[in-house]
Amino acid sequence: MLIKENGSQPSSLGPESNFTGHARRDPIHVADDPSRLAVGAVTFDPGARTVWHTHPVGQLLVITNGAGRVGTWGGEVREVRAGDTVWFEAGEKHWHGAGASTAMTHIAITEAVGGSAVDWLEPVSDADFDTA
Amino acid sequence: MLIKENGSQPSSLGPESNFTGHARRDPIHVADDPSRLAVGAVTFDPGARTVWHTHPVGQLLVITNGAGRVGTWGGEVREVRAGDTVWFEAGEKHWHGAGASTAMTHIAITEAVGGSAVDWLEPVSDADFDTA
Repeated sequence: MLIKENGSQPSSLGPESNFTGHARRDPIHVADDPSRLAVGAVTFDPGARTVWHTHPVGQLLVITNGAGRVGTWGGEVREVRAGDTVWFEAGEKHWHGAGASTAMTHIAITEAVGGSAVDWLEPVSDADFDTA
Repeated sequence: MLIKENGSQPSSLGPESNFTGHARRDPIHVADDPSRLAVGAVTFDPGARTVWHTHPVGQLLVITNGAGRVGTWGGEVREVRAGDTVWFEAGEKHWHGAGASTAMTHIAITEAVGGSAVDWLEPVSDADFDTA
């Protein structure tokens, strides 16, 4: 049993290679084999979002605060709010972030396969973000 | 992409076979292959707890509200509070629940292997619960 107390893991800003705008990451847990879990929280300031990306076996988001947006490649942009959950399929190209004027926080739950839990791609354009 | 809106998944009470006392379950997500995720929230009224149990590749708890207790077989009982996280190793026999006088809510994140994400065992005695 390993307990990590609130306040024991430093926050960090998401790098420009993976995020547009101000996105604060709060780590939760990265497992060792045989578990595949890679779990963390992200808080997006208004307008902030991930770049397009995929996950090898999918991703679950649990929206814990605020209201934001999620989008899929070639699909629609949807609004999400605290208490909603979002499941992205394995390999589904997508993004997630804040609303235009509202911050959003989620817990992101992924599974690493072959040493990687995510493949980062190109930024989400303002036009794609504003489709909501 | 599958969005489940807040309020769309009914709450249920944890069965006596798996829980002692009043434990309310709020489902989040159970994945299909190739993902192994099985994720849900549980709110324990004061004194309520799981029975002893194990998970095939471990379990992550994210404490989201209140203060409670966690215990391992032959080990110590520890207090946990909102914002803390707890990792139980694969096969580690353990329990989690509320405090004696305080409710506790956590998100429980597990991975199913061979069709099962948990093996439920015997109840946690009042003596074991009160060790905290």
